[in-house]
Amino acid sequence: MIINDAIAEILENVNQASQSLDQDNLEKAMGVLISSANVFVMGMGRSGLVAKAFAMRLMHLGISVYVVGETITPAINTGDTLLAISGSGQTSTILSTARIAKKRGAKIIAITSYPESLLGDLSDHIITIKGRTKIDSEQNYIKRQINGRHQSLAPMGTLFEITSLIFLDGLIAELMHKMDKTEDDLKEKHNVLE
Amino acid sequence: MIINDAIAEILENVNQASQSLDQDNLEKAMGVLISSANVFVMGMGRSGLVAKAFAMRLMHLGISVYVVGETITPAINTGDTLLAISGSGQTSTILSTARIAKKRGAKIIAITSYPESLLGDLSDHIITIKGRTKIDSEQNYIKRQINGRHQSLAPMGTLFEITSLIFLDGLIAELMHKMDKTEDDLKEKHNVLE
Amino acid sequence: MIINDAIAEILENVNQASQSLDQDNLEKAMGVLISSANVFVMGMGRSGLVAKAFAMRLMHLGISVYVVGETITPAINTGDTLLAISGSGQTSTILSTARIAKKRGAKIIAITSYPESLLGDLSDHIITIKGRTKIDSEQNYIKRQINGRHQSLAPMGTLFEITSLIFLDGLIAELMHKMDKTEDDLKEKHNVLE
Amino acid sequence: MIINDAIAEILENVNQASQSLDQDNLEKAMGVLISSANVFVMGMGRSGLVAKAFAMRLMHLGISVYVVGETITPAINTGDTLLAISGSGQTSTILSTARIAKKRGAKIIAITSYPESLLGDLSDHIITIKGRTKIDSEQNYIKRQINGRHQSLAPMGTLFEITSLIFLDGLIAELMHKMDKTEDDLKEKHNVLE
Repeated sequence: MIINDAIAEILENVNQASQSLDQDNLEKAMGVLISSANVFVMGMGRSGLVAKAFAMRLMHLGISVYVVGETITPAINTGDTLLAISGSGQTSTILSTARIAKKRGAKIIAITSYPESLLGDLSDHIITIKGRTKIDSEQNYIKRQINGRHQSLAPMGTLFEITSLIFLDGLIAELMHKMDKTEDDLKEKHNVLE
Repeated sequence: MIINDAIAEILENVNQASQSLDQDNLEKAMGVLISSANVFVMGMGRSGLVAKAFAMRLMHLGISVYVVGETITPAINTGDTLLAISGSGQTSTILSTARIAKKRGAKIIAITSYPESLLGDLSDHIITIKGRTKIDSEQNYIKRQINGRHQSLAPMGTLFEITSLIFLDGLIAELMHKMDKTEDDLKEKHNVLE
Repeated sequence: MIINDAIAEILENVNQASQSLDQDNLEKAMGVLISSANVFVMGMGRSGLVAKAFAMRLMHLGISVYVVGETITPAINTGDTLLAISGSGQTSTILSTARIAKKRGAKIIAITSYPESLLGDLSDHIITIKGRTKIDSEQNYIKRQINGRHQSLAPMGTLFEITSLIFLDGLIAELMHKMDKTEDDLKEKHNVLE
Repeated sequence: MIINDAIAEILENVNQASQSLDQDNLEKAMGVLISSANVFVMGMGRSGLVAKAFAMRLMHLGISVYVVGETITPAINTGDTLLAISGSGQTSTILSTARIAKKRGAKIIAITSYPESLLGDLSDHIITIKGRTKIDSEQNYIKRQINGRHQSLAPMGTLFEITSLIFLDGLIAELMHKMDKTEDDLKEKHNVLE
């Protein structure tokens, strides 16, 4: 079935990405997350859903975290961090938000496939997640037309989004260890009004 | 124009409601909001939007507040308060949430047109906001059919929703005074990432 | 009580705004809303909540409507309309979104206190809603400091937000009439999963 | 690093789940999704984010889809389908929503680890996704205390959530094929206001 091939393609991408993690870089990014007064997360479309999934776990860990665009998100200030997820590193709303955050003295962590992007330039820490993004698929359009090569079974930003989600859930496991938290600590914070 | 009549009907409802405010009751509710460890707000549909508009201002006032259903909302516990907005007082999701909150030791404040409703029964404090609600309009259906009386120009829960919003914004003015906050204090907390 | 004064200040603002409605202009805006393939609504902060409250009623009327930033919002195209709510007319995210929408051939309707703003310049139709907005309150800061004049009891954009909401609910009454819809027609579309 | 072990644990779970897919069952579920007048998706917490990620792609495919709880979601009716994601199959809000949907004549598709759950009982089609869920982790609490066994590196519902997301993205690949859609068809619908 096609579904099995699609899943295999996704897993292959995650596998490759997990082999090129830069430990030093991760340690620094975790240090920033733990020591920030508040962490603000942001992403557009499905990357925004990944940002929210990560934010929920940061809250469970006891880190003060807000989602850009939600109701009770306060002003960002020096001592805070904006974590922005953008495969292309050039989503315009992300860029303008990151510029405001930087001007107000906040640190920026980028999760992107393109460390050399405009978002990368603005960021204090970059976590590079390889994975065909929306813009790759645009650039490949003509090539594919020409040589009739089969399409990816994971359309648009799918590979980047899933790989980022899994990577960030891996980071949660690291943070649990570093902050000496057990699953039961996390559960105590879990929303019960559902 | 019809729009002028509709606005007049809305203003008339707010006016009437504002004349029957119970000062004692309000003082108690404000006391609960100020002294809670965390305030959780909730409403369905347009009442949920009113709840969010109120939550934003509570955050500006420096009160720790969460919206039920948003990403970073933690577990509710003793010492916390759930403020639930429901015109009918019988929205099923609101009731089941209020029951969980109560069982966990939280206080309940209801904003409703029906203090004798199931939600009213569950609540520690009730703020009654008169205003034709969704259920009134249901009960009036047959009557209207029979006597051909003109319809309200504010369909479904509109009067309750707007009156609640204005009332809660009035409460913010009271809270600013009580907490000795100026508009400039509020602005410092206002989200800047827009 | 302060709450009564605050409510009176809000009602006074709505009253004044309702006296300066431009019928011709409204007719044209309604024509655009009814004839659009899809209406997209947008606002930041509490103006965004007003936009959502209006969108819910447009949906009840059977108009195809989307909220910018929600999950299932598709691409905007020629034949569509973006209705943007911004008191100041200069919210940066609103401006960049309006520019994209315009470039793709959509019409723009602005709800703003400042028809001469950047948002006003971009728009095909402007509905002016008077009401002290966030920027007024900023510009008044020094004046207030100097002459010790009492502060507004409706902080930041409150007057603009509430006046816009009531105005848009009045517009719904007009649209019901124009589209020959009864309250019972609207109820049939009302979300039941709550 | 712990992050590598966590990623490996996640991938292992997806791998196992992908080996037990029931083709017949999937074909039927896809038939329901394609032939529904409207698809409504729902989930709480991180499962809700998975539901939204899937809804976005259904929209790109041209299927009429709504997210329960978002602004423009209309009444559900006969001919519609509710797709509910719940690891445990016993989330109370999900159950009460599914009951309303069923009573109104809609079909129910469940994504769950527990086909024999209350949600399973209510559903017309069940897609079983294995993966330690929140309740497993609760039931294992005492066992782990006793035998000091190391904890999962994917706390609470993580394995279920990620496996469901990847599975549903695989389903999108199947649907693209079945509906004869290319990636470029999907892109035409992709939100551009970001």
